[in-house]
Amino acid sequence: MLRPLAGPTMQTFVESDASIRIFLPIGAARRGAMPRANLPRPSRERNCSPLRALTGGPYNDDVGAGDVAGSAPDVDGMLRLVADRAARRGGTGVGRVYLVGTGPGDPGLLTMRAVQLMRSADVVLYDRLVSSDILQLVHPGARMVYVGKQRGFHTRTQDQIQELLEHFADAGALVLRLKGGDPYVFGRGGEEMGFLRERGIAVHCVPGITAASGISAELGIPLTHRGVATSVRFLTGHSQEGGREELDKTIAMSVDPMATLVVYMGLQTLPNLTTMLVEGGQDPRTPSVAVERGTTSDQRVVFSHLEELPAATTDASLKSPTLIIIGQVVALAPGWKSWIDTGVALQTGGNGSSNVLPTDYQDLLAPLDDVETETPADWEAH
Amino acid sequence: MLRPLAGPTMQTFVESDASIRIFLPIGAARRGAMPRANLPRPSRERNCSPLRALTGGPYNDDVGAGDVAGSAPDVDGMLRLVADRAARRGGTGVGRVYLVGTGPGDPGLLTMRAVQLMRSADVVLYDRLVSSDILQLVHPGARMVYVGKQRGFHTRTQDQIQELLEHFADAGALVLRLKGGDPYVFGRGGEEMGFLRERGIAVHCVPGITAASGISAELGIPLTHRGVATSVRFLTGHSQEGGREELDKTIAMSVDPMATLVVYMGLQTLPNLTTMLVEGGQDPRTPSVAVERGTTSDQRVVFSHLEELPAATTDASLKSPTLIIIGQVVALAPGWKSWIDTGVALQTGGNGSSNVLPTDYQDLLAPLDDVETETPADWEAH
Repeated sequence: MLRPLAGPTMQTFVESDASIRIFLPIGAARRGAMPRANLPRPSRERNCSPLRALTGGPYNDDVGAGDVAGSAPDVDGMLRLVADRAARRGGTGVGRVYLVGTGPGDPGLLTMRAVQLMRSADVVLYDRLVSSDILQLVHPGARMVYVGKQRGFHTRTQDQIQELLEHFADAGALVLRLKGGDPYVFGRGGEEMGFLRERGIAVHCVPGITAASGISAELGIPLTHRGVATSVRFLTGHSQEGGREELDKTIAMSVDPMATLVVYMGLQTLPNLTTMLVEGGQDPRTPSVAVERGTTSDQRVVFSHLEELPAATTDASLKSPTLIIIGQVVALAPGWKSWIDTGVALQTGGNGSSNVLPTDYQDLLAPLDDVETETPADWEAH
Repeated sequence: MLRPLAGPTMQTFVESDASIRIFLPIGAARRGAMPRANLPRPSRERNCSPLRALTGGPYNDDVGAGDVAGSAPDVDGMLRLVADRAARRGGTGVGRVYLVGTGPGDPGLLTMRAVQLMRSADVVLYDRLVSSDILQLVHPGARMVYVGKQRGFHTRTQDQIQELLEHFADAGALVLRLKGGDPYVFGRGGEEMGFLRERGIAVHCVPGITAASGISAELGIPLTHRGVATSVRFLTGHSQEGGREELDKTIAMSVDPMATLVVYMGLQTLPNLTTMLVEGGQDPRTPSVAVERGTTSDQRVVFSHLEELPAATTDASLKSPTLIIIGQVVALAPGWKSWIDTGVALQTGGNGSSNVLPTDYQDLLAPLDDVETETPADWEAH
C-alpha cells in the first residue's frame, strides 16, 4: 500500500541546546502514495500513539546530544503503522492537520488548545523556534519530527514539510505542526493551509501569542497607548517575505510618530531600516529596543534611540531570533528608565511575568494516566 | 485600619447573557486608606481565598439574572478580610496585580499562565468582554468583581478600577485584572500598569491572543502571506484612543495594497474609514470581512468588498464587539469563496478550530483537590 522510502535525505539543523533531535529522511513523503478514501478516521479518544513503538519516545535516552544519526526514524515505517492502525479502527475518512502557534518561547504562553492538541497528537512536526520547555508538554507517545529551517534552505524544505504533513494526514494521523509565535504572523501558516486545503485535507490554525505581544508584555511596553500610539504595525526585515523593493516601500510607509513599529526578523536589515525611517522623517531619537530570545530565560535586551540601535545591537552581539520595537511607547518600559539612569544598554534575564509563579506546567495539567491510553505493547498485540 | 465605605455607587452594566454579575459600590476604594508597609505578602501556596465566605462564590445561586442589587458585595469588608488574613500569615510586603489578557472569547485560547493565575487569585476584576466560559475556570474561592464599562462612562470608571486594583493589592491580595484580548493592544493595560507602578505596586502583564490573531485563525485568513501581505497594521475605530483628527491621519497612512489592515472597535466609524481609504487610493474592491463576537459560538461574519462593507454590516445588523479585516489575504478564507459562490453574506457559527476537540477545559486541568486549599470554614476558624 505504501511506496518504500526513496529520494534524498533532508538536512536537519540541530540546535546545540535542544534536548530532542531527530535526523529525518523525508524524500519518500510524496503525495499520491496512499489513496485517501481507503483510510479511516482516527478515534478521538485515543491519546497515545503507537508510533513510539517504532523508534522510541521523544525522550528516549538513545536520542541524546551527539547521537543524532543513530536515531533516524523510519518515516515510511511510521506512515505504515499509522495507516494500518487507522484501518483497524474501522472508521471512515482521513487524518487532519493543526497548525499550532506556540508563542515566543515561554511555555506559560501556550494556549489551552495547543496543550490539548500536544497531549492528543499522533505526530508532531516542530520548528527551530519551538523551545524544549514547550516540547516537554507533548504526550510521550507522540512521534516527534524536527523540521527546522535555516536561511538558504527555505524553498525546498518548505515543500518537503508540506508533503510530509499531507502524507501523515493521508495515513490517518492527528498531525500537529508546531510553530514559534503565531502561524499567521510571518509564520508561513497561510502557505501550509493552502497546500493542504487544495489536496482536500482538513486543516485548522490555532493562533499563538505573537512575539510582539509576548515580548511587549514581558518588557512592560504597551503596543498601543492613549495619546502616545494609536496604531501598531508589524513588518518583517526578512526580504524573502516580499522582496527588497517591497520591503523598502513598506518601511517608507511606516514613518509615523503616533504608531508603534514592530519588526520581526529584522536584525540583518536593521541598518537599512533605521536609515530609511530617519530619512523618511522619523525622529532619530525615537525610543527603540531589540530583544533576542524574548520571554525565555536567555532573553537579551538592548534599549537605544533609533539612530543608535544598529550600533548598540552590534556592540551587544545580538543574534537571531531578535524582535525590534520602535516608538514612544518604548520609553514607558521600566528597562528604558534603567538604561537612561545607568547607561547599561544590555539587560539580560527574562520571565518577569512569571517571577512569582510556578513554571512547571505539568502540575497544572491532569495526569495523563487519567486519559485513555494505549501502550506500544497494546498496539503490537492488535 | 480601613476607612468605612463612602462615596458614590458605581453603575454596573450587566449583560443579559452573563451568568455572573455583581453590583459594586466602589466609592470607598480610595488610595491612602491603608499604609502598605503594615501589610504582609500573601502566601504563594494558598489557592482558595476566604472572600467567598463573605458574599458567596461567584456561581452562588443567589447571584442570578435579575438578582443584581440583592448580591451587592461589601467591598470594604472584602478589603478588611484580605488585610486581616494577610497580617495573620505574618509575611512582609504587599499583594500584586496581574493584568491578564483572556483572548477573543474562546476559552481554548487562554494561555497556561492565565489559567494558572485564575486558579490562584484572591480577587478577580473582569471586563464585559471576558466570556462566562472563561470565568468558569476561575477558582471557586476567588472573589469576582465585575467592572464592565460602556461608552460615556469610560473616564470615571477607569479611575475607579485603577483605585480598586491598588486597594486590593494594598490589602495583600493576589489580584487579577482579566481583560478581553491582549491588555497591550487597545486594552488600556499601559494606563493601569503606569498607575500602579507610580504607587509602588508590583504589576505584571500576561499577554492574550489579540482579536486579530484569534479571529484570523478562526476564519483561515493569514495576516501576512508571501507576495500578498508583507505587513499588518492594527488600528482602532474608537476615536477616544487618540481623537478624531488623529484617527483620520492614521487611516490616511494605512492605504497600502500590500498590507493587511485590522480595525478594532471599528463598526461605528466604518463608513468614514471606508470613504477615507478609498479616497486615499485603496482599491474599493479590496476583500474585507467584519466579525462580531469572533471565536465564540455566537460568531457572525460578513464578507464584502471594501466599498460595500458598511452597507453589508448594516444589513446583517452586526453589533459590537466587531473586528474588521481589510486586505487581499481575506480572499484566502474559505468563507470568502462561499460568499462569492452563494451570495450569502452573513455566515454564523464559530469555533472552527475546535470542532473535533473536547471543549471542557476543566478535564485538561489537574483537579483543584490536588492543590492546597482553604475553605471558608477554615478561614472563619482562624
